[in-house]
Amino acid sequence: MTTTKADWAQSSPTTPAEWLTRAAEVSALLAVDAVERDREGKTPHAEVRLLKDSGLVTLLGPTRHGGGGQDWPTAYRVVREVAKADGSIGQLLGYHYLWFWAARLVGTSEQIEAVEELATTNRLFFGGAVNPRDADVTIRDEGDTIVYNGHKSFSTGSKVSDLTVLEGVLEGTDKHIFAIVPSDIDGLTFHDDWDNIGQRLTESGGVTISDVRVPWASAAGYVDKEFTPRVYNTLNVPTIQLVFVNFYLGIARGALETARTYTAQKSRSWLHGGHERAVDEPYVLDIYGDFTAKLWAVEALADQVAQEGLAIHQSPDLVTERERGVHEVRVAAVKARATEVALEVTAGVFEVTGARSTAAREGLDRFWRNVRTHTLHDPVAYKRREVGVFVLRDEVPEPTWYS
Amino acid sequence: MTTTKADWAQSSPTTPAEWLTRAAEVSALLAVDAVERDREGKTPHAEVRLLKDSGLVTLLGPTRHGGGGQDWPTAYRVVREVAKADGSIGQLLGYHYLWFWAARLVGTSEQIEAVEELATTNRLFFGGAVNPRDADVTIRDEGDTIVYNGHKSFSTGSKVSDLTVLEGVLEGTDKHIFAIVPSDIDGLTFHDDWDNIGQRLTESGGVTISDVRVPWASAAGYVDKEFTPRVYNTLNVPTIQLVFVNFYLGIARGALETARTYTAQKSRSWLHGGHERAVDEPYVLDIYGDFTAKLWAVEALADQVAQEGLAIHQSPDLVTERERGVHEVRVAAVKARATEVALEVTAGVFEVTGARSTAAREGLDRFWRNVRTHTLHDPVAYKRREVGVFVLRDEVPEPTWYS
Amino acid sequence: MTTTKADWAQSSPTTPAEWLTRAAEVSALLAVDAVERDREGKTPHAEVRLLKDSGLVTLLGPTRHGGGGQDWPTAYRVVREVAKADGSIGQLLGYHYLWFWAARLVGTSEQIEAVEELATTNRLFFGGAVNPRDADVTIRDEGDTIVYNGHKSFSTGSKVSDLTVLEGVLEGTDKHIFAIVPSDIDGLTFHDDWDNIGQRLTESGGVTISDVRVPWASAAGYVDKEFTPRVYNTLNVPTIQLVFVNFYLGIARGALETARTYTAQKSRSWLHGGHERAVDEPYVLDIYGDFTAKLWAVEALADQVAQEGLAIHQSPDLVTERERGVHEVRVAAVKARATEVALEVTAGVFEVTGARSTAAREGLDRFWRNVRTHTLHDPVAYKRREVGVFVLRDEVPEPTWYS
Amino acid sequence: MTTTKADWAQSSPTTPAEWLTRAAEVSALLAVDAVERDREGKTPHAEVRLLKDSGLVTLLGPTRHGGGGQDWPTAYRVVREVAKADGSIGQLLGYHYLWFWAARLVGTSEQIEAVEELATTNRLFFGGAVNPRDADVTIRDEGDTIVYNGHKSFSTGSKVSDLTVLEGVLEGTDKHIFAIVPSDIDGLTFHDDWDNIGQRLTESGGVTISDVRVPWASAAGYVDKEFTPRVYNTLNVPTIQLVFVNFYLGIARGALETARTYTAQKSRSWLHGGHERAVDEPYVLDIYGDFTAKLWAVEALADQVAQEGLAIHQSPDLVTERERGVHEVRVAAVKARATEVALEVTAGVFEVTGARSTAAREGLDRFWRNVRTHTLHDPVAYKRREVGVFVLRDEVPEPTWYS
Repeated sequence: MTTTKADWAQSSPTTPAEWLTRAAEVSALLAVDAVERDREGKTPHAEVRLLKDSGLVTLLGPTRHGGGGQDWPTAYRVVREVAKADGSIGQLLGYHYLWFWAARLVGTSEQIEAVEELATTNRLFFGGAVNPRDADVTIRDEGDTIVYNGHKSFSTGSKVSDLTVLEGVLEGTDKHIFAIVPSDIDGLTFHDDWDNIGQRLTESGGVTISDVRVPWASAAGYVDKEFTPRVYNTLNVPTIQLVFVNFYLGIARGALETARTYTAQKSRSWLHGGHERAVDEPYVLDIYGDFTAKLWAVEALADQVAQEGLAIHQSPDLVTERERGVHEVRVAAVKARATEVALEVTAGVFEVTGARSTAAREGLDRFWRNVRTHTLHDPVAYKRREVGVFVLRDEVPEPTWYS
Repeated sequence: MTTTKADWAQSSPTTPAEWLTRAAEVSALLAVDAVERDREGKTPHAEVRLLKDSGLVTLLGPTRHGGGGQDWPTAYRVVREVAKADGSIGQLLGYHYLWFWAARLVGTSEQIEAVEELATTNRLFFGGAVNPRDADVTIRDEGDTIVYNGHKSFSTGSKVSDLTVLEGVLEGTDKHIFAIVPSDIDGLTFHDDWDNIGQRLTESGGVTISDVRVPWASAAGYVDKEFTPRVYNTLNVPTIQLVFVNFYLGIARGALETARTYTAQKSRSWLHGGHERAVDEPYVLDIYGDFTAKLWAVEALADQVAQEGLAIHQSPDLVTERERGVHEVRVAAVKARATEVALEVTAGVFEVTGARSTAAREGLDRFWRNVRTHTLHDPVAYKRREVGVFVLRDEVPEPTWYS
Repeated sequence: MTTTKADWAQSSPTTPAEWLTRAAEVSALLAVDAVERDREGKTPHAEVRLLKDSGLVTLLGPTRHGGGGQDWPTAYRVVREVAKADGSIGQLLGYHYLWFWAARLVGTSEQIEAVEELATTNRLFFGGAVNPRDADVTIRDEGDTIVYNGHKSFSTGSKVSDLTVLEGVLEGTDKHIFAIVPSDIDGLTFHDDWDNIGQRLTESGGVTISDVRVPWASAAGYVDKEFTPRVYNTLNVPTIQLVFVNFYLGIARGALETARTYTAQKSRSWLHGGHERAVDEPYVLDIYGDFTAKLWAVEALADQVAQEGLAIHQSPDLVTERERGVHEVRVAAVKARATEVALEVTAGVFEVTGARSTAAREGLDRFWRNVRTHTLHDPVAYKRREVGVFVLRDEVPEPTWYS
Repeated sequence: MTTTKADWAQSSPTTPAEWLTRAAEVSALLAVDAVERDREGKTPHAEVRLLKDSGLVTLLGPTRHGGGGQDWPTAYRVVREVAKADGSIGQLLGYHYLWFWAARLVGTSEQIEAVEELATTNRLFFGGAVNPRDADVTIRDEGDTIVYNGHKSFSTGSKVSDLTVLEGVLEGTDKHIFAIVPSDIDGLTFHDDWDNIGQRLTESGGVTISDVRVPWASAAGYVDKEFTPRVYNTLNVPTIQLVFVNFYLGIARGALETARTYTAQKSRSWLHGGHERAVDEPYVLDIYGDFTAKLWAVEALADQVAQEGLAIHQSPDLVTERERGVHEVRVAAVKARATEVALEVTAGVFEVTGARSTAAREGLDRFWRNVRTHTLHDPVAYKRREVGVFVLRDEVPEPTWYS
């Protein structure tokens, strides 16, 4: 890999295939020291810089502002590619895409235009202090402005971001209001207390929000302090869940490819098995065949579902609740499969790399730790249940923050 | 279902979607008495007639001769749809497509044109007395004609076919020669001795071949008694294996849909579970969700691989050995997954239909018996191995009758 | 096998090991025509005769009346051994043991003595028209006698039995009353309508009960028309569920051993695999190893749990509810494992016997059909749940007819 | 837990049950800071001291020297119990037992007596620099003494041991010679370079052996420089493999019990699931039920196989090769099951503890890392293969260092 950032500056990808090549270049660079960075828990300033320099951060941005003008199917594939080398950076990029897109899901047309121009032109990186499960941030209405106060336990990416999406509940109501603020605004304190077994570089620690003031005009989707929901605004769940799916798949593929190199170069065949090379062992071939087939199947479904979602994203105001719901069910299904297969593959590769591959310096366990950590975001059992309810009772899930 | 054959006679489908609708109509008709026919082991004369009347038999035939002019991806989907209701008929149709297509794979251009016109114009149905594993049919060269003699243990569909593909080995050589003969030609005796636990209506019994004479001009791909292989002629394996995949998937879906109706209409919730309806039982929902997600994933891969094969079928003489091999590996992967998921689903649906669904009259076991029987055609372990060898050693399988 | 019934008549086994040898002899005789009898759905008069002639029917009977004087752990092993050859006969024998024992569980001491002497001395065979899930048999109190009327959908073994256990609900109360009657008593009509995919010879059809009169004195456990429950009478569920476990395990082992013989004698190695014999194929060895290990583990647990139950059966009036409950949880666990492993093994053996083993005459599918049918008796998901509740909430199941 | 070492000093356990109680006390003490010690990779001097103070190290020692006089089945159970809290210490103790016992397996009667007295009286702890896979330590014969030189990559426990078992190959021969030396003997250098993802406290780093002199009289089993093998000396493999099995099972149980406490005390039910407590979630109960049932089954098999081995250990010179081989096959089976179930449970518990349980401070991943690391000691596929060969070809494994 001799690609340099200088090359990137000179030309921008235009087709999906070119963007995937660009993502592969980024992935190769990330792979170089992924094990060390994981071990150190290193804050990924340089890696976010890489996402900016490569142009990946503006993949979804309008071409008129210098963005890639690409669609979600390509974004998902880019996330998958980046996650192969580094699951944390894949997650950060995927969340960034979602926050970038959030304006379209809930904003007014003025807000959409403003955010996209700002973020695309300046290649800004998004983080989010959003955790709808707990109503732990309140909003005070002070006339022209709203004021956020509270604490979020998990706030992915904010510390390395330029912009942060805030979310809270307006006092005296059950209205959730989203707004985008500069990450270095007064009143935001990132606690840097994310110390988990996986996705260690996602900067998902807590954040305290003290008197962060935002003009009502920036309250996403609000006009005259009133929010008009449309079906489209409920697409954040299937969209972010497909982001999850794709970085799970990327991590799993990263595990499989890393293992493959190890098996081919370092593993020894079993001394009583009669095979000279590990790559000739029947059980080794069987496992690689099995894992690959499983991954290919889920990847195919992920791509198919992404394509189905594209039609919805392209005609946001024509989406019916049923269409939205069926899409969510399909996403739930691929989420279930991606979870199960990614866990199986990342835990199972050791079987085909062997005892010495458990050396800490190999870092081969990071794939499993990454998948294991994030797949608990919401219980996969409820995803299977969603699919079962659809198939058996012909009901689609009610839009919530998790379905 | 009020579709009548009269409706079919009046208009022919033209798009893939229309062909799938046609296939669904056929499937619905087949479903009506599928359980009874399976139990009786009834020779499917009427069902092959249905395939002809509906036009499905000429799906791949040139439009200039009245065929559907469709591609393999549609053919696979049609096989899948038909197999939902009746795995045997799905298999017969899939094999028919392969034999119909065999001329293109190995024939000369004159042979291709002749076979396609004959078969399409007259809506002829193909069977095959081909079993390359055993060299049990010999061919004698008698100058202008070749003479087949021998016995095949399994000969799918021949008894209900109009044309039969013969295969044997030329005496004193290791040349396999294929030829198409009328199924009622003198010297062909079908033994009607297929009595297996599944795919009971495929008429896969043995056949004795006594002095069946074929002009050398009909020896597929032979000019002046010499055969010129091209890479394309090695595509029969991935093509027929994808046929297998699709009727496995069809059978599995048939099982799941049949079970769903049963669970919704007849199953009782557990008396100590606290749920009034079976469709509310957590374990029932979980299993339906799980099976559906698994099936969707394999279906997506089957469709993706079919699409990959299309490019090869469309440019048959540009195919490289590597491209052929990579396609075969992808087919092997989806074969492995389809086998495993179809077995799991067809055996597992009983878990969600309950004790009374084991009544013989329900016939719910036929799905498993069908999948169980045909998936043993060649060991799935060797399919996983093919994929493993590719991933680990970057080798593609040598073309044989099974890889 | 040259054992004859004459040999059996001359000496009776005395140790558990001898009883298991006797059971193995019976099993070998049953295996001879098990496939044919299964296909014909032949009423097992001769086979029940075999159970009598071999002495197995009186295994649990007191030695003073000529019985074997054995304990439940041996009875379970005998059921397992018999079920290896014929799952139906294993089930019939196991149910017989339970009905034979039922007097001890619920009867008065006079009833226990009377039943055991009668049944042991005369080697009588028990069936049961008991299905506590539905209250479909009513009992009228006519002073000294009670009169049963109603219909049971499933009544295992009654048609080939000498004695039948009736169960119904006393009108105007929620009291269930059990009583033993001669199977040929007036008013009992067996409908011979069991036509299911598995356990085909268990004679589990419906029965109509019309004015069957039983003296109050025969109402099991009733004295002066009042029933005094004790913890011990709630042991029927764990006891019969362990019977289930053992015939599932027997059927699974029968499948594995039948497959082993087939693989060794008839299966062909794969033509492209490089192994001359099927018994050298890596995937074949792997599957046999895996299935065997799984079966051994469940068998070990089944034996361990049987041993735990023995202490309870030996001190029936000292049993606490907690002890009873913990035993039930252990039984639930082994039931879950036996179900899962038996299903996996019986469906999976085809993988290692190959395509030709699906011939109907081999009857290799009967093992799966047998396990598949009976394991739906009550949902295995609720067995896992029982164990989960115990582990997680430290609660034991309330005694019901299914827990 | 208020047990103090003072209590231990006052009385020694005498029955297996008492020894298991003692082991449970040790386990409880180890659990207190297991997470911290694992993270620090702390050399377990204090923990080995605990094993000595509790008397566990002399469990297998003769009572006449102050040992416990217990058998292997109890030793395995003790290892399992200790491993629940700390897999590393469980492994250290299990290896210690094997090395302690090694004298009986290969030594002369004088050597056995000497070693057992020395080690029991002084409560010495064994480590071993043995790795038979590589012939990397050579032995020079210098008349009355032999001199070891070389390097072992892995040497479990040596650094915290009193005695170390050396193993090497006599120059010019293929004779392996074992000898026991003081761990602080001149010429032994422990490199402290074990840095793997699991079993981090086993001190399994490399060791360099420079001119370590041992009298020929200490060469285990050698008389006049000749070694007389007996079948019994080939029992080291099944014995140590059962040690593995038992610490895998202990670790798995530790994971399950730790998770149970977490689920009950900290996990939240799903916000859209309708259950107030995590312990009421159907999927949570199902997983606990499933894992428990699987563990119980493998534990039962482990106990049963341990009992089978006891007979062999009790009559070492009567063991036939066939008996030895059948025992090894049984051990291979339980090794396969223990591996698979321990991996499944330790990876799967997160599913029922939830997202927050991935916090590094919880240390819940250590169970999986421990099992994952050691189960690669030798490929489990070859264990299944051993069982398959036995079942299918009726062959028992040839004794090697791994079968």
